[in-house]
Amino acid sequence: MDQTKVFLSEKDMPRQWYNLAADMPNPPLPPLGPDGKPVSPDMLAPVFPMNLIEQEMCTDRWVDIPEEVLGLLMLWRPSPLYRAHRLEKVLGTPARIYYKNEGVSPPGSHKPNTAVPQAWYNKQFGIERLTTETGAGQWGSALAFACALLDLECKVFMVRISFDQKPFRRLMMETWGATCIPSPSPETKAGRDILEKMPDTPGSLGIAISEAIEAAVTDTTGKTRYSLGSVLNHVLLHQTIVGLETKKQLALLGEKQVDVVIGCAGGGSNFSGLAFPFVADKIAGAEIAIIPVEPTSCPTMTRAPYAYDHGDTARMTPLLPMHTLGHTFVPPPIHAGGLRYHGMAPLLSLAITEKLMEPRAYDQLKCYEAAVTWARTEGFISAPETAHAIAAVIDEANKAKEEGKEKVILFNWSGHGLMDLSGYDAYFHDKLVDYPLPEEELQKSLESIKDLPKPEDVAKSLA
Amino acid sequence: MDQTKVFLSEKDMPRQWYNLAADMPNPPLPPLGPDGKPVSPDMLAPVFPMNLIEQEMCTDRWVDIPEEVLGLLMLWRPSPLYRAHRLEKVLGTPARIYYKNEGVSPPGSHKPNTAVPQAWYNKQFGIERLTTETGAGQWGSALAFACALLDLECKVFMVRISFDQKPFRRLMMETWGATCIPSPSPETKAGRDILEKMPDTPGSLGIAISEAIEAAVTDTTGKTRYSLGSVLNHVLLHQTIVGLETKKQLALLGEKQVDVVIGCAGGGSNFSGLAFPFVADKIAGAEIAIIPVEPTSCPTMTRAPYAYDHGDTARMTPLLPMHTLGHTFVPPPIHAGGLRYHGMAPLLSLAITEKLMEPRAYDQLKCYEAAVTWARTEGFISAPETAHAIAAVIDEANKAKEEGKEKVILFNWSGHGLMDLSGYDAYFHDKLVDYPLPEEELQKSLESIKDLPKPEDVAKSLA
Repeated sequence: MDQTKVFLSEKDMPRQWYNLAADMPNPPLPPLGPDGKPVSPDMLAPVFPMNLIEQEMCTDRWVDIPEEVLGLLMLWRPSPLYRAHRLEKVLGTPARIYYKNEGVSPPGSHKPNTAVPQAWYNKQFGIERLTTETGAGQWGSALAFACALLDLECKVFMVRISFDQKPFRRLMMETWGATCIPSPSPETKAGRDILEKMPDTPGSLGIAISEAIEAAVTDTTGKTRYSLGSVLNHVLLHQTIVGLETKKQLALLGEKQVDVVIGCAGGGSNFSGLAFPFVADKIAGAEIAIIPVEPTSCPTMTRAPYAYDHGDTARMTPLLPMHTLGHTFVPPPIHAGGLRYHGMAPLLSLAITEKLMEPRAYDQLKCYEAAVTWARTEGFISAPETAHAIAAVIDEANKAKEEGKEKVILFNWSGHGLMDLSGYDAYFHDKLVDYPLPEEELQKSLESIKDLPKPEDVAKSLA
Repeated sequence: MDQTKVFLSEKDMPRQWYNLAADMPNPPLPPLGPDGKPVSPDMLAPVFPMNLIEQEMCTDRWVDIPEEVLGLLMLWRPSPLYRAHRLEKVLGTPARIYYKNEGVSPPGSHKPNTAVPQAWYNKQFGIERLTTETGAGQWGSALAFACALLDLECKVFMVRISFDQKPFRRLMMETWGATCIPSPSPETKAGRDILEKMPDTPGSLGIAISEAIEAAVTDTTGKTRYSLGSVLNHVLLHQTIVGLETKKQLALLGEKQVDVVIGCAGGGSNFSGLAFPFVADKIAGAEIAIIPVEPTSCPTMTRAPYAYDHGDTARMTPLLPMHTLGHTFVPPPIHAGGLRYHGMAPLLSLAITEKLMEPRAYDQLKCYEAAVTWARTEGFISAPETAHAIAAVIDEANKAKEEGKEKVILFNWSGHGLMDLSGYDAYFHDKLVDYPLPEEELQKSLESIKDLPKPEDVAKSLA
């Protein structure tokens, strides 16, 4: 009988997070304020607690994980590393396929890896209440869970159409004690303005972000902050525990070399969490193909320029240097809501510009086909986002078969799809469609960022 | 930092199931046919494969787990044993509370522990197709999952009202390749008869069982059998891997003695799976309180006689010796659908008559209150059935506090509630009610079994 998975004992959990910024050939560029100058910590202080702002700007290679945070992560970590024996057999591939199962967390995805430390740092800083936005609900439920563990109030602005379509996600948040509000809401000026103009709007992530930030910065007690589930450096940092655990687990299995690392990338946090410790190896000379996967209908990494842009539609955030389709781009309504983001984490974007990664894009139908193959071989039902990674894994395993090569393929199974089964329903009833990239809209959106500062100019001015 | 959980490596998985029948002070009584005589293996042959019929009647203490079954169980087993540090702290109890997390399986409950071996034994016997019924959907999705792993066709008759109310459960089954049909259906004579009389019936578990058995026994190819998710000896046998793993994990933690073992009991399989290896210790002289928990509105163990009765409403099954409310009893519509069963596993019922257990019943509201406390301390969202166990755990932990005793409390966290959140919705919005036991209906139902053979008479005639 072959070993299917390897656990790691709690005492062998990584004690530090890994910061890729320390090892990048060229240093990351700073976020810019409205004046085009690098933002200072003080400018972010109304939005985030200072300890997280410091972490966001930190360039140390290793950052200690506080003991109490480790204790909380142990509610589900270390997560098991699986070998996909049954998929390998069905594909007839000589590749050995490994996956990290991040679906074991209470909310069912990798998101609490950062929700828990963010809640903890806020609590340490004396904060009593967090606000955030959520689209499909993965991030909102993860932060609700983290706030329950740390006795913080939590208010989640959920895009109204998802709020109506996914009552179970709202119920998860309520079970953990959070308040979940359909956005736009009458609770904020941003929400009221939109409701006045468009009382029947389904809402959008852009609007929800605006409301969540406004709700945080306008609280006169000073005890409320905002929390973001991806994109930012400190979020990616917290997720690196995934890749660091994986390295220890591969060593336990006697695997000395990984050839291909795969993950889906929306804002970039789940992919970076697994991949960054392996990017470090690549920078040091190892031969590894590092493949972030995105939808063809929202091709941030494969089609978009590396440019300065706002992180949100309403342009409330600083300008971030990243691959971006432009902040006005509205992606087609694919089921993988977590991959419908116009930008990409700056640190991940930088790694792409440095040719450390080989991003790739897939259509929705191919991803569901892969997810169904997965469910019927490996047993677990995947989130629609995770399905993108699986599609790439199958392609890479088939390529290894054609080449007759014994590769090691590793990927992040970032979450289960039990709360998002409607895409499977559409797939089984031939109602799932591929969405072409809206080219005209993309050009218009890119037009909207063409007058913003250019990364190459900022780099020169800082040199 | 205190240890939160302990894994068990795959190589340390139990290699045998434990059969409590071998150690019972009085031997179990046989199921009876329509003639009042013990059923022979041949009479069951159209319903179950002979290898499982043999296992059903087996009295060996230990039964080898086939290597291939072990390999399949490793997709999620061994499951972690957790210490509920955070709940202990909130309750201020000196008790150490441990729980087995059976929610880590792909369908999210303990059910695949038997679905997988059942599918495997059927496959070994040359069977190509399994039928079953499902109420809320836990068992149907577990069998669909198992059949996907073993390349068997699977047809699930799902009680129509659940089919309509829980589309996600149906989608899980379809994702694993099963066919899910609302019951009553036009596919069987039993279904057609009911539909003719009551075209708008919401269906019932009793009808669905009748349809599933009929669909199996009327297949003229002889390649179809029926599969049951609880109650029977071989089902309980397969579940004992839960308790056997737990014993190894407690030893790794240095725990030498368990004082209280708790689980919810509907048909009895999840409770027996954890408890039976500890019942063996109790028979051998250990002092352990073994507490199965049921709803007050369906009080099989705490109110019903030990009697011979049919396992289904339609009286298609043999007569089983068990605690039973009578096969015509229709329990109130509590959210814990898996606990709405008129009978109880014969082996578990026998252990109760032998005073090896101390069953207890709780109201629905108290259980949801416990489940919300659990979610906000231990993080996981519990199935409504599992909530009954948690309510008892909290009571026992508070009792230990009153007594000032350092007890070890162990329970089976049998599954997550992510597919069953509507009960939480009702709870949060003050719409959840306690259902009184329908006394008049109970008396009428008990009347319907009073002329069936009596266990004491059968025991005498066999002596």
